[in-house]
Amino acid sequence: MRFSRYFVPTLKEAPAEAEVVSHKLLIRAGMVRRLTSGIYSYLPLGLRGICKVAAIVREEMNRAGASEVLLPAVQPADLWQESGRWEHYGKELLRFKDRHDRDCCFGPTHEEVVTDIIRGEIKSYRQLPLNLYQIQTKFRDEIRPRFGLMRGREFIMKDAYSFDRDDEGADKSYRAMFDAYCRIFSRLGLKYCSVEADSGSIGGSFSHEFMVLAQTGEDLIISCAACSYAANVERAELVPPRAEDIDATEPGEIEEVFTPSQQTVEEVAAFLSIQPSDIVKTILVYVDDSPVAVLVRGDHEMNEVKVKHFLNGQVLRFANPDEVKKLSGAPCGFAGPVKLKVGNIIADNALKARQGWVTGANKEDLHLKNVSLLRDAKITEWGDLRRMEKGEPCPRCGAPVDARRGIEVGHVFKLGTKYSEALKANYVDESGEDRPIIMGCYGIGVSRVLAACIEQNNDEDGIIFPPPVAPFEVMLLNLDVKNEEVSAKADEIYEYLAAKGIDVLLDDREERPGVKFKDADLLGSPMQLVLGRKGLERGIVEAKDRRSGMKVELSLDAWDKEFADWHAQVLEGWKNS
Amino acid sequence: MRFSRYFVPTLKEAPAEAEVVSHKLLIRAGMVRRLTSGIYSYLPLGLRGICKVAAIVREEMNRAGASEVLLPAVQPADLWQESGRWEHYGKELLRFKDRHDRDCCFGPTHEEVVTDIIRGEIKSYRQLPLNLYQIQTKFRDEIRPRFGLMRGREFIMKDAYSFDRDDEGADKSYRAMFDAYCRIFSRLGLKYCSVEADSGSIGGSFSHEFMVLAQTGEDLIISCAACSYAANVERAELVPPRAEDIDATEPGEIEEVFTPSQQTVEEVAAFLSIQPSDIVKTILVYVDDSPVAVLVRGDHEMNEVKVKHFLNGQVLRFANPDEVKKLSGAPCGFAGPVKLKVGNIIADNALKARQGWVTGANKEDLHLKNVSLLRDAKITEWGDLRRMEKGEPCPRCGAPVDARRGIEVGHVFKLGTKYSEALKANYVDESGEDRPIIMGCYGIGVSRVLAACIEQNNDEDGIIFPPPVAPFEVMLLNLDVKNEEVSAKADEIYEYLAAKGIDVLLDDREERPGVKFKDADLLGSPMQLVLGRKGLERGIVEAKDRRSGMKVELSLDAWDKEFADWHAQVLEGWKNS
Repeated sequence: MRFSRYFVPTLKEAPAEAEVVSHKLLIRAGMVRRLTSGIYSYLPLGLRGICKVAAIVREEMNRAGASEVLLPAVQPADLWQESGRWEHYGKELLRFKDRHDRDCCFGPTHEEVVTDIIRGEIKSYRQLPLNLYQIQTKFRDEIRPRFGLMRGREFIMKDAYSFDRDDEGADKSYRAMFDAYCRIFSRLGLKYCSVEADSGSIGGSFSHEFMVLAQTGEDLIISCAACSYAANVERAELVPPRAEDIDATEPGEIEEVFTPSQQTVEEVAAFLSIQPSDIVKTILVYVDDSPVAVLVRGDHEMNEVKVKHFLNGQVLRFANPDEVKKLSGAPCGFAGPVKLKVGNIIADNALKARQGWVTGANKEDLHLKNVSLLRDAKITEWGDLRRMEKGEPCPRCGAPVDARRGIEVGHVFKLGTKYSEALKANYVDESGEDRPIIMGCYGIGVSRVLAACIEQNNDEDGIIFPPPVAPFEVMLLNLDVKNEEVSAKADEIYEYLAAKGIDVLLDDREERPGVKFKDADLLGSPMQLVLGRKGLERGIVEAKDRRSGMKVELSLDAWDKEFADWHAQVLEGWKNS
Repeated sequence: MRFSRYFVPTLKEAPAEAEVVSHKLLIRAGMVRRLTSGIYSYLPLGLRGICKVAAIVREEMNRAGASEVLLPAVQPADLWQESGRWEHYGKELLRFKDRHDRDCCFGPTHEEVVTDIIRGEIKSYRQLPLNLYQIQTKFRDEIRPRFGLMRGREFIMKDAYSFDRDDEGADKSYRAMFDAYCRIFSRLGLKYCSVEADSGSIGGSFSHEFMVLAQTGEDLIISCAACSYAANVERAELVPPRAEDIDATEPGEIEEVFTPSQQTVEEVAAFLSIQPSDIVKTILVYVDDSPVAVLVRGDHEMNEVKVKHFLNGQVLRFANPDEVKKLSGAPCGFAGPVKLKVGNIIADNALKARQGWVTGANKEDLHLKNVSLLRDAKITEWGDLRRMEKGEPCPRCGAPVDARRGIEVGHVFKLGTKYSEALKANYVDESGEDRPIIMGCYGIGVSRVLAACIEQNNDEDGIIFPPPVAPFEVMLLNLDVKNEEVSAKADEIYEYLAAKGIDVLLDDREERPGVKFKDADLLGSPMQLVLGRKGLERGIVEAKDRRSGMKVELSLDAWDKEFADWHAQVLEGWKNS
């Protein structure tokens, strides 16, 4: 491709709203432009990056035996009513009515549609197993789209669905997808890990996420170096206190203490000269519209996902100040479990470790001391309700865990029969009996992968694309476009590389060398070739490895060999990085 | 691909709602499935066909210098308000609100979005010309989706947009796209023609359609064998009657005649023993909500598109029975121009040819004889308001025209400054002045092309795909999958073809030969290879040209040469067909 006839509007500055580096660089490199909140246009260079990612995804999906399809974006509500998700999916599902007033939605995922196809076509065990996938534009109406392509509303996703006769087959399909995902992310040159994950609104029995490690990641990954346990913090299991660690001493009588305007755990702890870990936080929430009080230790964080699962609920929201007042009788910050008029009070396992606590008094400006949850409160149930923190014991081996940030780029789910039972997708087995098909589903955020790749590969000058993802593997800079000899030689090299099947962008613009060097670094091709009048006179092309910054001169007289060696060397450097 | 692991649910019967042959065959061949009205899922074989079409489109667009982008499906209303189309587009624009109550739509076309990008990035004449294209899922909420992929609501389209400094450049861009379209449709193996067309809701100064000729086409194409004039009937210009053909004789006095319950032109003509061409039809419509009476000769058809253009209107609808009663004072079938209380009465040029007409009397069960439009009616304006019919004189050379049916698969528009002026997309020219960018837009209905291709290429047994569009160029039938030697040889041939880069589908299912022969004909691969136990014993593979039906035996001993010769011969046959 010739830069002068291409559309790559590079920018010196990123727009103010761009917070993370991938967002800034995608805009500055002219790869994407924002149309409106969470919705981006892919300009030529950005689309090329997407296509590079998609091509690798496609190859590995095909290799794993999946067949590509393309399912509709606009879906009728009735299928979502059958699965129950029309009611439960929430506002992220973009709903609308067509001209005949029929309820529809813009597909954020395709379990319903694909199950509908399968129930119409699959009759016998002989037609199974089957795996269908697609690469498609999806829409999720995120309440706060952010970070550019990382959490957009409209995005490109690969979603696959497997259909099996039994659990054994389904586990095999799951494994095949898991392995394909490992190959995909390795081939893309990403530093990633797979973790146990919560299955969220998709549902199903178990799931793994694939995380690209990055400081800017929105997910927290708990991992254990000792036993290789890894899980999303939403899912990471906490071990209840061991019997020998429990202090069963009963405290003295409950005592009311005056805590004027001390609302947060930190304020109360400082005011009473105690530790946050001496306090019980009482968090008032509604789960599927029923009020619940959740108790966790003052220095711990409630885990919303765990609470929802624990109560088998779909939607959790925090009580607003009016509701807090109604439920506890006091303003925010003074709720407590003693005499609390909420039917359902659940407590985190960590609170079993001792008896004497400080809690809110359900009265303004008052807290209670010496509260025993066993003696003084009516706990409905105890459970694992909080987030694991760095340094806590690994649930598998007990060693202290690490906590790192990651970007979720893939997610594999074993769905079981959730959708096949709801939509009656059955097959007839060998003995002539009707049985529900066992399903799995498998997603990769294709556009997010591009952003994650940039998060992992950049410096102050711009993007440093791993060769398999680079929109152009080589950028060829003609520094003297008005010089006929230089331009002829640049064209010759351009044709040479194209004939070798190497994607090359020739910067043939009438711009100063400085602009070209800056843009080349910004756009991030892993290899740069620079040709100017002086170099041509000396019979050399300057070659720069964008990653290491290393420059060498390639002799035009021995071009075949010198280019091939250098090209191989740069690729080798990437493999070892 | 191996059939046993692929998802191709073939059917013996097409569903009742499938009216046209492409719709029937797309369903029967397991290429698509209907999700809901006008919305289809592409199953693996269908998607392969789409990808074959898209690949050729992409190659020729790139070759013509266009750069591929991908613009958002969900678009904010404000851009459409800027262009004025939020108001004018009608109900085919699928509109909705997002979770923050902002008006949006599902893009049916992308003039607004692409112009928005361009106005943000293009500053100088040095950045022009530019051509951006995409291949994307679009949505148009058709009131009556029909004919499968031919007129769906959700469909796949290639849309391109050119940006030029001046008219000369824009005409060059238009021509480059026109030529690229000719190459695309030729390479796809379609019988097509290009015709002058109306530019519809896209607007702009002139346009051409590309039509695939087919009996089931929804469009009528007027063409002249003598001078090669060709136009969509919506656009085909009619020559007004020549002076020497006009009969200026004034008729006698107007006479009321009793025509009880005679409402249609045919009924009135039969009842009065006259010809339909002796009658003036008075058609009551609303154009942009203003009532208009349109007069055309009884045997002619009003052309809605011409009427809209004539009145510079956006939306035309027919008056309903209540409105007819209100406007004419009589029930449907009795309206006439004499004393009609409609301010705007427009008459087709053909009515200039004589004076004495039969018209409705604006009274139930009554018509008028001896009506002179000049003497007895108040005609606001005369114009070309009707559809041309087969045999009428060509507007260029006067020879009788032909009328054929076609399927519109491509449309190129010269837009001029319609969008750049509305959205203020300007550039600074050489002399430093601000000028609006001159635009063009260019569409190809990718999914419709697949259907049109099947309309042109089929027989009673199924599809006969031209090689460039065939999901699999070769279908290889293993008739004895349980015989190890046959299966080993089939695998060998399969690998041989794959290594040659030929797309091959190996039917390795445990099915009877009859089923395999039928499915092979149905799926329409242009070449079939059949291997069975008996053939293997004799050292031959049976090869069938799906188009001609011709069968030959290829010797396994001289396989390389015999296959290559036969393959070349089948392709040659297609070129000459």
